[in-house]
Amino acid sequence: MKSAVTPLTKLHDLLNADMQALNKNLLTHLKSDVALVSNVAEHLVKAGGKRIRPMLTLASQRLFGKLHKDSLYLGTAVELIHTATLLHDDVVDESDLRRGLETANVIWGNTMSVLAGDFLFSRAFQSMVAADTKGVMKVLADALALIAEGEVLQLSQSHQIDLSHDMYLTIATRKTATLFEAACTVGGMVGGASFEQLQLLSDFGRNLGLAFQITDDIFDYFPSEHYGKKPGEDFFEGKITLPIIIALKTLADTKWLKSLFAADAVRTEEDFKRVCTLFTAGGVFDACVDEAFSYARQARDAITLLPPSPIRDVMEQLPNYVVARATEPCMTTSVEDVA
Amino acid sequence: MKSAVTPLTKLHDLLNADMQALNKNLLTHLKSDVALVSNVAEHLVKAGGKRIRPMLTLASQRLFGKLHKDSLYLGTAVELIHTATLLHDDVVDESDLRRGLETANVIWGNTMSVLAGDFLFSRAFQSMVAADTKGVMKVLADALALIAEGEVLQLSQSHQIDLSHDMYLTIATRKTATLFEAACTVGGMVGGASFEQLQLLSDFGRNLGLAFQITDDIFDYFPSEHYGKKPGEDFFEGKITLPIIIALKTLADTKWLKSLFAADAVRTEEDFKRVCTLFTAGGVFDACVDEAFSYARQARDAITLLPPSPIRDVMEQLPNYVVARATEPCMTTSVEDVA
Repeated sequence: MKSAVTPLTKLHDLLNADMQALNKNLLTHLKSDVALVSNVAEHLVKAGGKRIRPMLTLASQRLFGKLHKDSLYLGTAVELIHTATLLHDDVVDESDLRRGLETANVIWGNTMSVLAGDFLFSRAFQSMVAADTKGVMKVLADALALIAEGEVLQLSQSHQIDLSHDMYLTIATRKTATLFEAACTVGGMVGGASFEQLQLLSDFGRNLGLAFQITDDIFDYFPSEHYGKKPGEDFFEGKITLPIIIALKTLADTKWLKSLFAADAVRTEEDFKRVCTLFTAGGVFDACVDEAFSYARQARDAITLLPPSPIRDVMEQLPNYVVARATEPCMTTSVEDVA
Repeated sequence: MKSAVTPLTKLHDLLNADMQALNKNLLTHLKSDVALVSNVAEHLVKAGGKRIRPMLTLASQRLFGKLHKDSLYLGTAVELIHTATLLHDDVVDESDLRRGLETANVIWGNTMSVLAGDFLFSRAFQSMVAADTKGVMKVLADALALIAEGEVLQLSQSHQIDLSHDMYLTIATRKTATLFEAACTVGGMVGGASFEQLQLLSDFGRNLGLAFQITDDIFDYFPSEHYGKKPGEDFFEGKITLPIIIALKTLADTKWLKSLFAADAVRTEEDFKRVCTLFTAGGVFDACVDEAFSYARQARDAITLLPPSPIRDVMEQLPNYVVARATEPCMTTSVEDVA
């Protein structure tokens, strides 16, 4: 399954040498003379996904010319920021599995995860400080502030049954789409993109990020062996995500569903199965997929307006691919294959 | 007591207008459209100390001329980094009192403290990105990496009864002295200090930071109403700090002391009082104070070599003052008066 040709593997092939240089730079930034720090960092690299965010930085830059070293520094910073927020997320969510591996908080404890996350943030700054391109640091610093606020917003809102569709999108934008957007924007800046082109890259990244997050939230309701996270993790935590919001808006009888997410409610495996059946029959997942596709379309429409090249052609296919996996009756790739 | 004239109040008076501008910039950076973030930030400002670190940035810059706006940006970044690490420290240490106020983790929970700390880091970067002076961002990014590694090192080492004197100093340097050093260095860089002058400012900051940390560790054993932290906090946590290290090296019989810090040992109030009496009689605190003074002297020796000015004259008095409070039989100022 892993060897299937997808837009993601195609992009990886096109950027193969660049990605190798990036991984090398990433590893350099994970080194530490404090042994425990290196251990945690090594675990994170092992648990690493497909590095889609730094790949977007490289791809966005390479639309405009040959590899510029700042792309490596910034792509590294983007991936380190992503990994640091994952570490802190796992502490907040009390997760014990990510990408099929035990999370760092389970192995080393919450306190170590907090401190290791801070270490990764510091390495992200060291990497971005090495970049000479004007303005890129501000883009990443601003993105990080939006992400941090988004995490707080999510923590304060995620268990509220009356979470609005708009608030869901605000949170998804801040905690996920913002980093996709920044990853593309800084790549374009290094490449020397015009103001209008940067706007298109931002639009591409942000909408791709939203499509990605919505698909991720749908996948929580698709039990699958291929999926690194436990199915139903959001559900059992009582997290209000798009499927719940759409169900509350569209299903005829939502009394039971609401009671499931009351503050003191206990959600069982039986409840989870019943919700999955209910949502499938009621077209809830279809509506979520439609919404994800609408963002994927906006991402594609933006990237199409950039100068043609093999990289651009693959970037065009990426948003649709991210969502399409959620429409397959039996998932052959996991969402984490693109994380 | 608060109105006593000290080197700290003198420095504050000399930099009064600058400090007001800095506080204004700091408040601007704590604003957020996410209400909960603002609440936590406001709590931190209320609980704020005397802002010695940003004051060092301003003072170091003003040794070389009139106020430069980059000092405000960088001083703000320094204070935000300090506050963020405090927030995460309190989660790690499970502290419930800091500077006499309940810690954020008690009021809002650990998860919010983790996320609010991340938010403060992000604001620190936004502030430092605004500075134009070449090289300052690298100094702060490198400092943050050293601090983060220092925190991990401390977590992995602090409960080991055989913690060496050298390792204690390494940890104290990384987690405390590094930020004092960076605060002074970036101030000097903004002011246009020469390479040699920057070296002196670094030496001043680092040694002042060490004197400060050692004094802080001594104060843990001095029960005082004026002290914002609970007396004995380090002791009851089983943290190995300088007084313990010196006691193990110099006291005749250390069997009981060692047993107190065994992995499963329970330390009582009675134990704490007995340790304080033992350490006083055995000259342990005196030896710690001597060591703190030796760093204070190195700090003063460095700053004395910089061009004379009223600010430099007060900076010269600061290291001695930081330590001298620990020699007063009845403490009239708390260590937090300089934090």
